[in-house]
Amino acid sequence: MNLIPIDDPQDPRVAAYLDIRERDLVGRHGRFVAEGKVVLDLLLSTGRFAAESALILENRLAGLQAALRKAPSDFPVYVAAGEVMDRIAGFHMHRGILAIGIRGDPAPAEVLVEALPQHALVVVLVGISNHDNIGAIFRNAAAFGADAVLLDQTCCDPLYRKAIRVSVGAALKVPFASFDDSGTFIATLDRLGFSQFALSPRGNVDIRAAERSARLALYLGTEGEGLPTDMLAQLHTVRIGMAEGFDSLNVAAASAIALHHFSKARAG
Amino acid sequence: MNLIPIDDPQDPRVAAYLDIRERDLVGRHGRFVAEGKVVLDLLLSTGRFAAESALILENRLAGLQAALRKAPSDFPVYVAAGEVMDRIAGFHMHRGILAIGIRGDPAPAEVLVEALPQHALVVVLVGISNHDNIGAIFRNAAAFGADAVLLDQTCCDPLYRKAIRVSVGAALKVPFASFDDSGTFIATLDRLGFSQFALSPRGNVDIRAAERSARLALYLGTEGEGLPTDMLAQLHTVRIGMAEGFDSLNVAAASAIALHHFSKARAG
Repeated sequence: MNLIPIDDPQDPRVAAYLDIRERDLVGRHGRFVAEGKVVLDLLLSTGRFAAESALILENRLAGLQAALRKAPSDFPVYVAAGEVMDRIAGFHMHRGILAIGIRGDPAPAEVLVEALPQHALVVVLVGISNHDNIGAIFRNAAAFGADAVLLDQTCCDPLYRKAIRVSVGAALKVPFASFDDSGTFIATLDRLGFSQFALSPRGNVDIRAAERSARLALYLGTEGEGLPTDMLAQLHTVRIGMAEGFDSLNVAAASAIALHHFSKARAG
Repeated sequence: MNLIPIDDPQDPRVAAYLDIRERDLVGRHGRFVAEGKVVLDLLLSTGRFAAESALILENRLAGLQAALRKAPSDFPVYVAAGEVMDRIAGFHMHRGILAIGIRGDPAPAEVLVEALPQHALVVVLVGISNHDNIGAIFRNAAAFGADAVLLDQTCCDPLYRKAIRVSVGAALKVPFASFDDSGTFIATLDRLGFSQFALSPRGNVDIRAAERSARLALYLGTEGEGLPTDMLAQLHTVRIGMAEGFDSLNVAAASAIALHHFSKARAG
């Protein structure tokens, strides 16, 4: 393990960690920040993204031996005292575990779905612009074994620090990719034999009656406006039955119910 | 409608709205803050809590006529310009819709459950100390028609500003109450004929196989430690089947799946 003590917050070796919150807003040149023990462990164990370095609070190091051993032996692990770490990050880092990952070249959604197995469950997100919701949907996608998450251009970034944290690292595990034109993408999934279901409060069929097929795509839209009408017209629409007078469900909660439902046939 | 212009942030009539964020931490003498259009509407229409006043940004007033008409005609609606409102609240109130509600005397959980109908679904929360989770669980409870939420002493306050907001007002609609001793409360629900189910990752039965009874209680514990072992021993335990390698579900997502499941028989 390549442990490197850091005493100076301005040390150029930890420049990638400077003012983390500000950097969230302006991007970080092909990198992302992973935070916390579980997320660090997933970053190093899934291998889906390369890890560049870690920055660890000195008194957290002992508890991270197993996770850090999953990295190559020359992987730089910067170690700092609390005060130094807070000055690097620009706020109080009570968890004391950070790492930098490399985004790599994102494959288009079409390439990702072409490579899926014959039995596949994918989630398609349209206009999900809230990092809590994106993170929570990834967590549910991982929990119910979804093979990929596909995002339109108006979704927010699953590798935003908060989205990764809310996903409990699932954003580093479940493959995802973006698509440009929804009409073209629907046609691609259709050609690949996917049954395509959209969750909508006005869906034609109660989700309890929707049957799983070998290849299935689940579309989720924004809470407010939902999926565009022209898109709904091309998909099977399913609804989640709710109580009268309060038929309001968070999109992440809706994804949990729908993914749990569609993971049934898979398990059986 | 009793519209009262406010020009001075120190006006004693809006003292209840001063430094809202700080007040969240120290309590507010039997009052709570409701925020946003949907929440204000629920506060005034459900009547579960008395409303004391509203503080509205002047340019939001036109869009709130229907909601405010649900209040008594002498209900004070304080109206302020943006700068004045921000100085009252202590931060930028971009939504511009606040109201003060009165908690009233909370009934003990035992009294609430004694009064439930013969066909009833209740949620019992143990150690849910995160306001996002409490709010999201209340939203799901309302969406699936739960009759009450019962909380142990270690749960956080459903009337905390953020919890109400995340619940989209459901915390002002679904009756809730606290209980002291879980053993006594389990015995009460048992005496009242409730089937009692606890969600647990190591539950004995897959939730898909759990049957709804006329009176049903669903127990949810903290994400980390889950429900105490001695409590699990007194309940039917159910699990939500997940993918191998990432069997992690947020407690609010779990509540959505479980409530959707148990609301089935109710609908049928």
